[in-house]
Amino acid sequence: MREFITSFRVRSYECDSYGHVNNAVYLNYLEFARMSALIEQGFTLKSMKQKGYLVVIKKIEIEYKHPLFQDDEVIIKTFSSESRNTSGTFTQLVYRKGIDQPAAEAKVTWVFINLKGKPIPIPPEIREAFDIQE
Amino acid sequence: MREFITSFRVRSYECDSYGHVNNAVYLNYLEFARMSALIEQGFTLKSMKQKGYLVVIKKIEIEYKHPLFQDDEVIIKTFSSESRNTSGTFTQLVYRKGIDQPAAEAKVTWVFINLKGKPIPIPPEIREAFDIQE
Amino acid sequence: MREFITSFRVRSYECDSYGHVNNAVYLNYLEFARMSALIEQGFTLKSMKQKGYLVVIKKIEIEYKHPLFQDDEVIIKTFSSESRNTSGTFTQLVYRKGIDQPAAEAKVTWVFINLKGKPIPIPPEIREAFDIQE
Amino acid sequence: MREFITSFRVRSYECDSYGHVNNAVYLNYLEFARMSALIEQGFTLKSMKQKGYLVVIKKIEIEYKHPLFQDDEVIIKTFSSESRNTSGTFTQLVYRKGIDQPAAEAKVTWVFINLKGKPIPIPPEIREAFDIQE
Repeated sequence: MREFITSFRVRSYECDSYGHVNNAVYLNYLEFARMSALIEQGFTLKSMKQKGYLVVIKKIEIEYKHPLFQDDEVIIKTFSSESRNTSGTFTQLVYRKGIDQPAAEAKVTWVFINLKGKPIPIPPEIREAFDIQE
Repeated sequence: MREFITSFRVRSYECDSYGHVNNAVYLNYLEFARMSALIEQGFTLKSMKQKGYLVVIKKIEIEYKHPLFQDDEVIIKTFSSESRNTSGTFTQLVYRKGIDQPAAEAKVTWVFINLKGKPIPIPPEIREAFDIQE
Repeated sequence: MREFITSFRVRSYECDSYGHVNNAVYLNYLEFARMSALIEQGFTLKSMKQKGYLVVIKKIEIEYKHPLFQDDEVIIKTFSSESRNTSGTFTQLVYRKGIDQPAAEAKVTWVFINLKGKPIPIPPEIREAFDIQE
Repeated sequence: MREFITSFRVRSYECDSYGHVNNAVYLNYLEFARMSALIEQGFTLKSMKQKGYLVVIKKIEIEYKHPLFQDDEVIIKTFSSESRNTSGTFTQLVYRKGIDQPAAEAKVTWVFINLKGKPIPIPPEIREAFDIQE
């Protein structure tokens, strides 16, 4: 299992009237963590398009366990937890620095498509980069 | 079953580089639809606090089926689909106007808490307003 | 002078820890109002591209006078207030319904460009639609 | 003149259909840079409230000069450029790493208020921390 770590600070404008990070913003964070992992492995939106494919999100399940607040240091762990022929699932754990229990747990299911929008087998270079088991 | 309908147009800044509504923005839409339903039934954040309770989201599951684009008219149907003592689940179906199949389907699980953050039984006025079965 | 009116309600997730609409969200509102005016006059991003031009924002000046809160009804008045050969300025007044004084006043300066990014004279159909004086 | 430097990467969801950072997102960036400077100097929203004051934004002027794209490294320089008794202006220059010309230039005018919302003289500890001249 290859685990990717992304860390950053909660920004003021990401908090809502309750004073904590808005539920929708977690999805921004998860996307940011996945994109950072892709870039770390040499994949950009542009380079994927040039190779003739894209990845789109089919399903997200997220459980909110503890709130996050302004200036909190957030650490996200991202790893492949399931896969099929054209699609797979990443587990993403969102931590508030210094606390063992995750603040949120997510499962994000994606599918690879060609530029016409048709599902294609997961590209082998992606399987390798993210240690996605057959 | 009491169904709440919220409709609005996709705004330009809600779309991302793919040209369609960003995945996280759907959670904004779902929140907007739930809040509109609460307000329609006479509940505001302020009035709930005055009565000594708040509602927080515990879990969201969302499936993305068809993309939404700038200027699309969006219709969201929100209804209670499950409940326990202190918590329950709303199903929210997101439609692009004129298309029978939902663009996205979500299940949103919430819990009622008192102002100290402790779970409390679903308030009876909420059960009645949203037709939440025992 | 042709004035365009856009109205909508403040959404919960647009408010920040201060409990009022975040400063950056006003720019979303202004964009939404301008886009609504464009669409009302028959212009979409797509149709403008097909005609070979786009409009980009060069400068925004915004004064915040009174805060906006969740569920407030907002009314935005948009009108052309200045123009040159390739660029012009829209004044946008943001009102909280029922209050005479604007909650915010903005001047938004834009320029028309061709698809290579070069400034071009304001298209005559745009001049006409928005009553932009020579 | 004391200059504060904040740097970060453009996130995918901050880009719009044009493929570049949305105009409103620059205001998020500017807020993030100002908040980072405040925190660096030991001021948080909470600590300011405890001392009996808050700072609110009265006016923003921003000029967009060059677009920013996904994954760009952004550097923001923030410094005090003007001040009066209760209010002042920060200049904020937004750079794309490696390019000398700023991508955007902003002037942000703020005012200090007490917890009842009344303007108060700029607190001396703030004047000192940000090198705000009389």
